[in-house]
Amino acid sequence: MSKKYLIVGGVAGGASTAARLRRLSEEDQIIMFERDPHVSFSNCCLPYHLSGTVENSDSLVLMCPSKFLSQYNINARVNNEVIAINRVKKEVTVKNTLTREEYTENYDKLILSPGAKAIVPPIKGIENVKVFTVRNVVDIDKLNKSVKAMGITNISVIGGGFIGVEVAENLREAGNNVTLIEAMSHIMKPFDYDMAQILHKEMHDHGVNLIVGDKVSAFEKETVILESGKKIEAQAVVMAIGVLPETELAVKAGLEIGETGAIKVDQNYRTSDKDIYAVGDAIEVYHAVAGKTVRLPLAGPAQKQARQAADHIHGRIVRNTGFIGSSVVKCFDYNAASVGLNEEMIQAMNLDIKYEVAKVIPGDKVGLMPACEPLHFKLIFQMPTGKVLGAQAIGRGNVDKRMDVIATAIKFGATVDDLRDLELCYAPPFGTAKDVVNFAGYVATNLLHGEFKQVREKDLRNLVKNGACIIDVREKDEYELSHIVGAKNIPLSELRQRVNEIPKDEPVYLHCRSAQRSYNAVMALQHLGFKNVYNVSGGFMGISFYEYFNDETTGREKVVTDYNFL
Amino acid sequence: MSKKYLIVGGVAGGASTAARLRRLSEEDQIIMFERDPHVSFSNCCLPYHLSGTVENSDSLVLMCPSKFLSQYNINARVNNEVIAINRVKKEVTVKNTLTREEYTENYDKLILSPGAKAIVPPIKGIENVKVFTVRNVVDIDKLNKSVKAMGITNISVIGGGFIGVEVAENLREAGNNVTLIEAMSHIMKPFDYDMAQILHKEMHDHGVNLIVGDKVSAFEKETVILESGKKIEAQAVVMAIGVLPETELAVKAGLEIGETGAIKVDQNYRTSDKDIYAVGDAIEVYHAVAGKTVRLPLAGPAQKQARQAADHIHGRIVRNTGFIGSSVVKCFDYNAASVGLNEEMIQAMNLDIKYEVAKVIPGDKVGLMPACEPLHFKLIFQMPTGKVLGAQAIGRGNVDKRMDVIATAIKFGATVDDLRDLELCYAPPFGTAKDVVNFAGYVATNLLHGEFKQVREKDLRNLVKNGACIIDVREKDEYELSHIVGAKNIPLSELRQRVNEIPKDEPVYLHCRSAQRSYNAVMALQHLGFKNVYNVSGGFMGISFYEYFNDETTGREKVVTDYNFL
Repeated sequence: MSKKYLIVGGVAGGASTAARLRRLSEEDQIIMFERDPHVSFSNCCLPYHLSGTVENSDSLVLMCPSKFLSQYNINARVNNEVIAINRVKKEVTVKNTLTREEYTENYDKLILSPGAKAIVPPIKGIENVKVFTVRNVVDIDKLNKSVKAMGITNISVIGGGFIGVEVAENLREAGNNVTLIEAMSHIMKPFDYDMAQILHKEMHDHGVNLIVGDKVSAFEKETVILESGKKIEAQAVVMAIGVLPETELAVKAGLEIGETGAIKVDQNYRTSDKDIYAVGDAIEVYHAVAGKTVRLPLAGPAQKQARQAADHIHGRIVRNTGFIGSSVVKCFDYNAASVGLNEEMIQAMNLDIKYEVAKVIPGDKVGLMPACEPLHFKLIFQMPTGKVLGAQAIGRGNVDKRMDVIATAIKFGATVDDLRDLELCYAPPFGTAKDVVNFAGYVATNLLHGEFKQVREKDLRNLVKNGACIIDVREKDEYELSHIVGAKNIPLSELRQRVNEIPKDEPVYLHCRSAQRSYNAVMALQHLGFKNVYNVSGGFMGISFYEYFNDETTGREKVVTDYNFL
Repeated sequence: MSKKYLIVGGVAGGASTAARLRRLSEEDQIIMFERDPHVSFSNCCLPYHLSGTVENSDSLVLMCPSKFLSQYNINARVNNEVIAINRVKKEVTVKNTLTREEYTENYDKLILSPGAKAIVPPIKGIENVKVFTVRNVVDIDKLNKSVKAMGITNISVIGGGFIGVEVAENLREAGNNVTLIEAMSHIMKPFDYDMAQILHKEMHDHGVNLIVGDKVSAFEKETVILESGKKIEAQAVVMAIGVLPETELAVKAGLEIGETGAIKVDQNYRTSDKDIYAVGDAIEVYHAVAGKTVRLPLAGPAQKQARQAADHIHGRIVRNTGFIGSSVVKCFDYNAASVGLNEEMIQAMNLDIKYEVAKVIPGDKVGLMPACEPLHFKLIFQMPTGKVLGAQAIGRGNVDKRMDVIATAIKFGATVDDLRDLELCYAPPFGTAKDVVNFAGYVATNLLHGEFKQVREKDLRNLVKNGACIIDVREKDEYELSHIVGAKNIPLSELRQRVNEIPKDEPVYLHCRSAQRSYNAVMALQHLGFKNVYNVSGGFMGISFYEYFNDETTGREKVVTDYNFL
């Protein structure tokens, strides 16, 4: 017997559910309601319209209702908002947002995919500025046209998450004067502070006025007032503080809401009502590494949830392996990808996990290749099991490749020994015979198995302040170009001859450019009876990036004497 | 007590073993012998000197003996060839290739890493042409200087493996008239015929005179004579037919040689003599997917073996997970990567494996992004288990990323369901919300679970010849541009209205551009009671590439009426 399925929301999750439902049955009736004028638009591409990378805003709409009908026999109703659910009668009330007419539709199964909405806090004087959000094609069109109409102008983007960063980048690429304001100590929460600093520098280098650790306190006429007292001229303000799940309809219908504030679903994406499913940004999901329920508003997971909900509706067994938050973002010439947990998440979620960090900064391909670039790679793994918990990679090259490898490894419960042993594709234009991931695996297994000890970039400032013995094992010319205040230069190539210059009775901290040569030095010294030697994680490059943006902007005393190598 | 380690061969495997041995002990004596003038050069970068990508041949040498000494206290002796091993006395005889002096060195452990040598078959009249091989820096320097001295010239490269393809590409990039001659039906053995055709076309498009399925029978003055009778003018001939393991020293010493003709080693890279280890291109390894011992002359595996041999020498437990042959090659604007088994390997190795193939050709990133390109992806999986056996990917974009994901998945014994569920990094400049790998997982699980049936590209020619009912579900304008001879056009958007035009009593073969829309059509028809519908794997793009190079070169009757879309 033919069934009737109603879907609330016609973008990623909704459209995918509809298409999958159709593939599983020809006879069922499928109606998809979208309160905005477009279904199936590319949410993630919206920011790229601002720079003209996606020239035509119409092209952001991938499928129109008529194509849904002709190709999939799916009834897609735009400008139709579902405003109420009657769970007893299994019926929804729909309002046509143009005509204001209301009508009802009954259902066998209802699927909610309403997405998330931009947070717009009630900041004092908000009426004094032109405020924009970036949620759909109408929004981006409005923002783009307004900005273009003003000519090159001053724009403040508030919030340094995915959308904030992408909007800031694309507005800047279009030639505008862009200020990006982030209340936390760094942009891009999927990254730890040390990694985010690389993006801070990139923003800076491309002329974005980046402000971190400061908050908007009020708006005056075309001006953003920060808590620090700073005033930023802004003919337009883009609110990208974050998103909140669209739960209004679910709440009104009495569906259970989880602790995260998103719609609660079971392992089959079913809400507390067995005939109502929910998918996408409006729900909370199980984080497979954290072992906790979280909000994870990402397009990939939404599409997987959609397919699985449709499968379950058709009586199929669903395998819910949870989610790990694999994501990537372009920031001017840099790419930044992450997966699983980072250090700050472990703290923020209060997870009772003991972990260690391996950071490597090798070249992303053979050094002889013209396009070889350093790749900053940070791996977080559990102690004492060595289980991979998460990773972050930032560089000009193929960071998404390395992160997809980690994402795959995490799905299988990989340990750092597994990463060491991975056999990845190699030719000089693509990587190195030992890939970045293998390198991280080597360092991590060495740490796991206690082969050497390390200190982190963040510890360097205090060590320098306290006059610790820091030895720079780079060659003399490298040292002379720029080095850490007070570091002694004993190149690896002279180490064995000059070993008497190294104190045996106090801790010694060794570093080179990327921590690789200094690792060799640490091993040699250990074999020579030094018991208290540490490798500096990330090496000079890691420390320099860690300190760079603060020194430059705060005028704090420099730990690194010069950054000209960056 | 200090030990003495001797290493035969100073490139990938040898140099890595030496460095690892040093990290594990300061006191041991480490001597590395290399018969050629350079240690630690970038073997894989050699071809890139021919195009000037690596401008200076000196830079191909990564480490000189003096640096080995100063940085690692390793005694690297170039122009020193180990010519005999006395296993009883644990001593080798070394000949200085410059002075012809001979001397002996005793050892506690000996590590063989002699590599492989280019095959130069005794072809009639070989003295009539200038023959080059590409094994080391001296070779490539000689080839490059000779070619440059001749100006733009005619060069025949014999053999279409990694080295042949890379040499042909780089010589062509330098402006020469290059003929690439491959005796088999296609170049690049890691790929099946259908995939290699994409590379054939790319070679062709870039002006390489590609000849497949033809063999060199003789050389005359500056001329290559093929078995077909074709004559190719050639001022230089590069022999890149393949390599053979350098086993001479091992054979003379009475070490066991495996069935593959390479040195036999145990799980710890120990030869039949417990004090002699061997690593790199000279040994045979366990192929973890095939379950067989094979030769696998690749740089990545060599470095892993080196580290493990050194570890075992130091009494550490070695985890030998075997190898899977992950590899990648650049061919002009295309990248081609592969891992595990392909169809032809399964046949050639006589493996008793039932398998199925999933081919997808989605965009490698969101279609709206300017750099979006089709990515040809072929997945081979076991029936009925769904275990991933291998994959191949070719395209202008990030193919190595997708293959590294498969390589990682294979290491964990992944099934196609696992690929479907992988959560990979997504943003529009990098991929799609459902990544190529997920797509392949969807198609593969659908095939595995019997959701639909398919025919392969290679079957199309016969189907066309036999007048089978082939339905092209692309839109009318796509069909008109180019289509399969005799195919009927029923666009997916008209399918439900025109279902009566489709015969129910005979097999029906549906295709679109990439097999995705036709999959939707196949599902719809099945739900409508059609029992004998097939999706054409790879779609019109797959068929066109499959047939293209043959049609173009052999003048066979065309199965596809036009290729102008390629």
